[in-house]
Amino acid sequence: MAVTIIGTVALDTIKTPSESHSRILGGSATYAGIAASIFDNISLAGIVGNDFPDSYLTFFESRGIDITGIDISEGKTFHWNGYYEKDMSQAYTVQTDLNALLEFDPDLPEKARQARVVFLANIDPVLQKKTIEQLKRTEVVILDTMNFWIENSLDALKSTLELVDILIINDQEIRMLTGKDNIIQGMSDILELGPSRLIVKKGEHGSIMFNGQDYFICPAFPLKELVDPTGAGDSFAGGFAGYLSQSKVLDEETYKQAIIAGTMISSFTVQGFSMDVLKNIDKDRILRRYKEFEKFTALPDKLVL
Amino acid sequence: MAVTIIGTVALDTIKTPSESHSRILGGSATYAGIAASIFDNISLAGIVGNDFPDSYLTFFESRGIDITGIDISEGKTFHWNGYYEKDMSQAYTVQTDLNALLEFDPDLPEKARQARVVFLANIDPVLQKKTIEQLKRTEVVILDTMNFWIENSLDALKSTLELVDILIINDQEIRMLTGKDNIIQGMSDILELGPSRLIVKKGEHGSIMFNGQDYFICPAFPLKELVDPTGAGDSFAGGFAGYLSQSKVLDEETYKQAIIAGTMISSFTVQGFSMDVLKNIDKDRILRRYKEFEKFTALPDKLVL
Repeated sequence: MAVTIIGTVALDTIKTPSESHSRILGGSATYAGIAASIFDNISLAGIVGNDFPDSYLTFFESRGIDITGIDISEGKTFHWNGYYEKDMSQAYTVQTDLNALLEFDPDLPEKARQARVVFLANIDPVLQKKTIEQLKRTEVVILDTMNFWIENSLDALKSTLELVDILIINDQEIRMLTGKDNIIQGMSDILELGPSRLIVKKGEHGSIMFNGQDYFICPAFPLKELVDPTGAGDSFAGGFAGYLSQSKVLDEETYKQAIIAGTMISSFTVQGFSMDVLKNIDKDRILRRYKEFEKFTALPDKLVL
Repeated sequence: MAVTIIGTVALDTIKTPSESHSRILGGSATYAGIAASIFDNISLAGIVGNDFPDSYLTFFESRGIDITGIDISEGKTFHWNGYYEKDMSQAYTVQTDLNALLEFDPDLPEKARQARVVFLANIDPVLQKKTIEQLKRTEVVILDTMNFWIENSLDALKSTLELVDILIINDQEIRMLTGKDNIIQGMSDILELGPSRLIVKKGEHGSIMFNGQDYFICPAFPLKELVDPTGAGDSFAGGFAGYLSQSKVLDEETYKQAIIAGTMISSFTVQGFSMDVLKNIDKDRILRRYKEFEKFTALPDKLVL
């Protein structure tokens, strides 16, 4: 089994109240790919410029990630420059340089086309659709997007959504996409657009999965300190996709397990700057944290009335 | 066993996007008292004016609520006039007329002083402290407060908190009270102020209880429609207090059950205007909703890694 992940492979310049770093490894596909590679074989697809450090490519390969789907352009690598204020609740963008991303025209290697699970991380929905059209025998197509595409490429996004199995977006994005203030109400609307399953990420408040009938409401792991929220959502989705891919059967229980895997991984991601913690976690740490999580969320057996 | 609840007994003028009503029964002690009376015998303490309709007093009595602790002043009843906008996420105050509340000087009836559980609903912390000083053999003192007192009566509030077992506040209030953006971090700070247990209400995102060691993270019941959020927090706390009072032992499991009781009750409260739904719920509806809630929040048995 394997996962193909397409999205941005970027250089990030990030400033938090305590730390700042320039032009370090980032991007939606990167965070998702590192997370997913904890569980399964990953093919990454994206584009970088000729300024992209070889050491980052070597880092991908050291995790068994197939990078033949990463194009190398003559231009520069996509660059995001952003910062967080004290409450860390929102990323503020100083500047986005699309650079090489403007030339990107996905053409997946044969192996990547045969992946069981495909995660289309945040990128132009036109490119996401092009990717879907190249897939063979893929069982689960998962898509993430962002406010920019909802505002500026709604038609392309809707046309892509028709081909998607699972949509993963955050609470602000679902409000924007459905026009509904109430997330639970909005969730029903989404399923009319194509996906048969939806996951809404709510940051420190956890996530909700909906399959058209039942919800799975999953709190976040309680953390006293956030070091850097960058990549939380992407590593959640990557962990989710990787977990699905390594699972024998894809039933409701598996989807819940995959949500837990994503929840635990993203809780580690935000505890370090950039990929500092994410790149060091393994199955054992995930299992240990889940034990603690179970303790914090265990419902009482019954009400005594 | 019994619960004493002190707070505001009010006339509310409420406008939501779909409905509006003038001078209807409201107030923190009212919502909490109605909720708690589902489980146990309640004594209400507060003050109303001579304009307070007899029918409302009769309504309290019809629920077995002892109202000998409600003073009747020559003035007018405390009146809150507020509204909600489309997203229902925040109550906007048009006007607050304190009226009779200005003369309130709590002097609990003997029976109310002997309650096992006492809930000090939102009211001046000076009056909350006076109430605590009148208590005999009370096992659990629970306190709610609001931004107004944190901003304007912080010293009085802190002096009252030293005498409190359980603090129940919302996420904005804990940020204001502790100066910490991170709720989980703020929760530890609160326990240094007096309470041995803390519950943070997060509205649609549920609640978190903390006993100094373990968390209990409880999502909210998913609702597609909010009719009127008024009294959600007060009925949560009242349900929590009432459940504790009727419980044989007060152990960690009981506290969790009480959180569930409050969570289910407040989910009903917001489904109707004012007390329309709250006043009609019973133990059976609570149990049925909890069954559904268990289904939506059940964790997977294990991760398969």
